[in-house]
Amino acid sequence: MGEFELIRRYFAAAACARMSGEADGVALGIGDDCALLGVAPGEQLAVSTDTLVAGVHFPEQGDPGLLGQRALAVSTSDLAGMGAAPVGFTLALTIPSVDPDWLAAFAHGLDAMAASCGMRLLGGDTTRGPLSMTLTVFGRLPSGQALLRSGARPGDLLCVGGALGDAAGALPIVLGERDGHTPEAAELLSRYWSPQPQLGLGQALRGRATAALDISDGLLADCAHIAAASSVSLIIEQSRVPLSSALLAVAGAEGGLQCALAGGDDYVLAFTLPADAAPGLREEGWPIHVIGHVARGEGVHLLDTAGRAVAPHRRGYNHFQG
Amino acid sequence: MGEFELIRRYFAAAACARMSGEADGVALGIGDDCALLGVAPGEQLAVSTDTLVAGVHFPEQGDPGLLGQRALAVSTSDLAGMGAAPVGFTLALTIPSVDPDWLAAFAHGLDAMAASCGMRLLGGDTTRGPLSMTLTVFGRLPSGQALLRSGARPGDLLCVGGALGDAAGALPIVLGERDGHTPEAAELLSRYWSPQPQLGLGQALRGRATAALDISDGLLADCAHIAAASSVSLIIEQSRVPLSSALLAVAGAEGGLQCALAGGDDYVLAFTLPADAAPGLREEGWPIHVIGHVARGEGVHLLDTAGRAVAPHRRGYNHFQG
Repeated sequence: MGEFELIRRYFAAAACARMSGEADGVALGIGDDCALLGVAPGEQLAVSTDTLVAGVHFPEQGDPGLLGQRALAVSTSDLAGMGAAPVGFTLALTIPSVDPDWLAAFAHGLDAMAASCGMRLLGGDTTRGPLSMTLTVFGRLPSGQALLRSGARPGDLLCVGGALGDAAGALPIVLGERDGHTPEAAELLSRYWSPQPQLGLGQALRGRATAALDISDGLLADCAHIAAASSVSLIIEQSRVPLSSALLAVAGAEGGLQCALAGGDDYVLAFTLPADAAPGLREEGWPIHVIGHVARGEGVHLLDTAGRAVAPHRRGYNHFQG
Repeated sequence: MGEFELIRRYFAAAACARMSGEADGVALGIGDDCALLGVAPGEQLAVSTDTLVAGVHFPEQGDPGLLGQRALAVSTSDLAGMGAAPVGFTLALTIPSVDPDWLAAFAHGLDAMAASCGMRLLGGDTTRGPLSMTLTVFGRLPSGQALLRSGARPGDLLCVGGALGDAAGALPIVLGERDGHTPEAAELLSRYWSPQPQLGLGQALRGRATAALDISDGLLADCAHIAAASSVSLIIEQSRVPLSSALLAVAGAEGGLQCALAGGDDYVLAFTLPADAAPGLREEGWPIHVIGHVARGEGVHLLDTAGRAVAPHRRGYNHFQG
């Protein structure tokens, strides 16, 4: 048995691979040519794939436990953006060499996020090469009820599910360019390493939101996806973009706003909502932050506190490097 | 729009991404947070993930068109081993830089194999980093009819779906260690770069084979998986292992046999079959090569032409390097 076969067994023994029962639709997990998923009548399966590459999407020497957490959270967030309920994931892990401590910590972080999200490890592949990982995530949802990017209508409210920019504000700390030893810095770091996919909110938005996605490339860049897919214009009121006190403390008001608008890595939902749908969602306790509205036209338009158009920001999709 | 966004659009324009219709169960393809798959009542979805890393699983400077073909074939073969009908795949492609010629050739090869296998590109991710690719493939099959590794019973025939060892015989040519300018060498190279997943055979074996898998790590290593999962012993008669005339010409009888037993990368099915199931399958035209049988006990046992036990070969899982 080769060392990579041992690693496969190692992951097969992880808690998230041993979750039992067919109730979640997993008829066969790790160990054969394929995993088998059942889908209930009237349901569809949502599928998304994301790759994280060392030195591009995370620091090569980063904490493996945090990396495991973050990798699964980033991928699972696409299910939230679709309104899907979590089912499980496959992990394709490429590592330069077999380091048992690294693997144990990585699997531990992965397990923790899997438990927190209700995701099960279904299978995967372990290979030798430059450090990277590709996760493919699976969720289920009632047929025809997926939250697409294409349904926003003029008059809808434009909303986000929470404070933005924290992960981008953490980036200089992750890179060692800024001090990380303050409580505010620690809060931002936690948002960078352990984003919490808004799975509950996504499911609550089914049948209510007209369009939705998870913000990964930055608010402006991702709103542009909704605007294009829906053939509408999105108007964002700068002063209504929610910023955390930690981000304001670390990056200041102007720097914090830039992180929120163009930073990316938020993994918070952005969605459009008929105005009459907001009160009910708030009553149920969901975080609904109105930041603007949908209008006829095209593109994303930013208004300052006086309601004047701000020069468009083209940035976004701001990966770890380059 | 960044260059990687352009690449995403490039792949979204590929023929295999534009295949139409929900008949195949694809309700939503490329372009949103997730793809959406429908599964008919009474069916299950089979899922498998494979990673290929440059310099480990294929030569860094290899022909991108052949690489695209091979990557999809290798992954799709897992569906054949399960008896699943093809649905589609996601592609996570990591490339060091954007080379339009390379991408065009890669997408062309991918498209050709997708058309040949009936697979549709459902989505994916394009990232910057050392060259590698992770494909996650999807197939469908009637619930409970998947060909597992665990059902082999003493008395069953042990069969393979075609000649073995050709890809392993091609490896010295791929690596430039042996002349590739003979018709036989070209035949082996074609088997290495363009394996044909035995999807039809896999589906024909449903309800007939007691265990099956696709041979990727070498006949002995993969038969050991069936033996272990089924708690039986597999007896292989060395003289019955089918070898192509091209392999015999290039590697000789002994070298060819070693390629077949331990070489890997065949992507031919190995399966166990009640003896009375073989004639019907042959009448339908499926390639059924009996190479031995299933017995009580454990492990894989090799018999020479005189029926004597041959010292066990431990090798297998013989990747491109190391």
